[in-house]
Amino acid sequence: MKTILPFLALCLLLGVSTATAADTLPSWSDGAAKKAILQFVERTTKTGSPDYVPPVERIATFDNDGTLWAEQPMYFQLIFALDRVKALAPQHPEWRDKEPFASLLKGDVKGALAGGDRAIAEIVMVTHAGMTTAEFEQIVRAWLATAKHPKFKKPYTECVYKPMLELLAYLRANGFKTFIVSGGGIEFMRPWTEKVYGIPPEQVVGSSIKTKYEMRDGKPVLVRLPEINFIDDKTGKPVGINEHIGRRPIAAFGNSDGDQQMLEWTQAGGGARLMMLEHHDDAEREYAYGAKSHIGTFSDALMAEAKKSGWTVISMKNDWRRIFAFEQ
Amino acid sequence: MKTILPFLALCLLLGVSTATAADTLPSWSDGAAKKAILQFVERTTKTGSPDYVPPVERIATFDNDGTLWAEQPMYFQLIFALDRVKALAPQHPEWRDKEPFASLLKGDVKGALAGGDRAIAEIVMVTHAGMTTAEFEQIVRAWLATAKHPKFKKPYTECVYKPMLELLAYLRANGFKTFIVSGGGIEFMRPWTEKVYGIPPEQVVGSSIKTKYEMRDGKPVLVRLPEINFIDDKTGKPVGINEHIGRRPIAAFGNSDGDQQMLEWTQAGGGARLMMLEHHDDAEREYAYGAKSHIGTFSDALMAEAKKSGWTVISMKNDWRRIFAFEQ
Repeated sequence: MKTILPFLALCLLLGVSTATAADTLPSWSDGAAKKAILQFVERTTKTGSPDYVPPVERIATFDNDGTLWAEQPMYFQLIFALDRVKALAPQHPEWRDKEPFASLLKGDVKGALAGGDRAIAEIVMVTHAGMTTAEFEQIVRAWLATAKHPKFKKPYTECVYKPMLELLAYLRANGFKTFIVSGGGIEFMRPWTEKVYGIPPEQVVGSSIKTKYEMRDGKPVLVRLPEINFIDDKTGKPVGINEHIGRRPIAAFGNSDGDQQMLEWTQAGGGARLMMLEHHDDAEREYAYGAKSHIGTFSDALMAEAKKSGWTVISMKNDWRRIFAFEQ
Repeated sequence: MKTILPFLALCLLLGVSTATAADTLPSWSDGAAKKAILQFVERTTKTGSPDYVPPVERIATFDNDGTLWAEQPMYFQLIFALDRVKALAPQHPEWRDKEPFASLLKGDVKGALAGGDRAIAEIVMVTHAGMTTAEFEQIVRAWLATAKHPKFKKPYTECVYKPMLELLAYLRANGFKTFIVSGGGIEFMRPWTEKVYGIPPEQVVGSSIKTKYEMRDGKPVLVRLPEINFIDDKTGKPVGINEHIGRRPIAAFGNSDGDQQMLEWTQAGGGARLMMLEHHDDAEREYAYGAKSHIGTFSDALMAEAKKSGWTVISMKNDWRRIFAFEQ
């Protein structure tokens, strides 16, 4: 007490915050990426700044797969779908002779996915449609409660990037409203985004299938139909942002070709803007992939676009001291 | 000061709020409707109440046409569309011989609308599609800045119900998040809902047409296409609520058959719920219409459903001391 009190008094006198820059975003290295974030927040939130943005307009959008949580060895939602096929197989003896299910049930994931988009769509529809929204939510919750990531041996909801959790909290502490804008399924994310990211369901934008309102035993339900409603990827991201948020973001974060249009749309507004792309370049702590990966492709064209447009590329290897909370 | 200070001190001592019940919702008469609102808010927000609802789950949804603002002599968005047809007519000489435009341009609105849904759809598409979202927003703003309601001789954004503005503010002061869930166009509402209702764009759910992302002169735009995306009415309301909010409301407010499913969906959740329907029964201060009106139909079946389900019917004549702020 003897030593701390005069120090606190001095801080108050000098108008210095006791929270130093080192306390903000502690999992970020002191490099260009962290600096870009701090400067952007300062410019847009400090009263009297020429780039000041009123709180209601402080919209920040985040891709999910590969941006907030991992996406390798494949999208977690696809792993969920494959697990569901196995769980549902006893009720579908016909799957034993029908692709893509036959290969999948023999443990040949690669063979099952060889059918491309059509095979994936079939797997998604039989595992995501045909039940009520409430039933689907329970299925997702039950899966998340037991499934583990093959490399990290942790629940998928722990395979989230600690620096990004800090960034979300930091932006919100500065009056930003944080949204997810993901190619993933909106109803696959909503059961857990509030707890894991602090992002409530109404701030989650994603892909969706159609639903239908009907009465079952005098109780209203929403039934999930095997029909695409919206694909929230690439040019779909600005469309989804406009439809759900109705306001242009001033900051946007992604990691792959699917995010380019979201960043373009964000940048095209006036005033201060922050566009960032995470580059998965840490094979040891996470994964190193990029231009040649089918999942989370970060093409050379995107890298060129980032340079041309002044978007910050975050090196997960160099800009992040720590990737996961469970790391030692 | 001499008399007030001891009174304030007494209030503090007794823990009594100086804001009495009479200050809350001043435009509401002290009847069953006001009582239902006050009791519901008390039950759901008071710590320790068996019906307590955490702030994040305090979702309240409001229809717009006929619930927050007037909808007679016809939906304001339809009046906007008719005005736009007239404004665009010089660029469309072919309309002089083509219905529904020909009748409309001769001043025969009834004749123009005789073509039913198809005629309305044609009018909506030529007036709502074919421009960028930014251009459409400017068109809406410009119209609202000059157009006047035929009966009240006021801008449409002043033809909003004062008791409902008080209710929105009262709910928000008690930690509720207020959403619009309207059959009206989402992009027709968003330019003004924040200023008029305190409801930001991201909390507006409505009908929409499709949009397409494209580059024009190196700048990204969203172009409005002449194709329906979503109709947020009747069974569409729970679908829209699920898609945009992802959480079931605990309170819902409407005024017509188009709101029934929203109220059913709200009621079907567990715990305390508040469902209310406004009945337009004041021909003098506003309009009296109901079962036989084509716009804002409040059918006998809906009235029976309200009685059966315990939904509160608000008599605008008796429950509201004042309807509009501009009233003397």
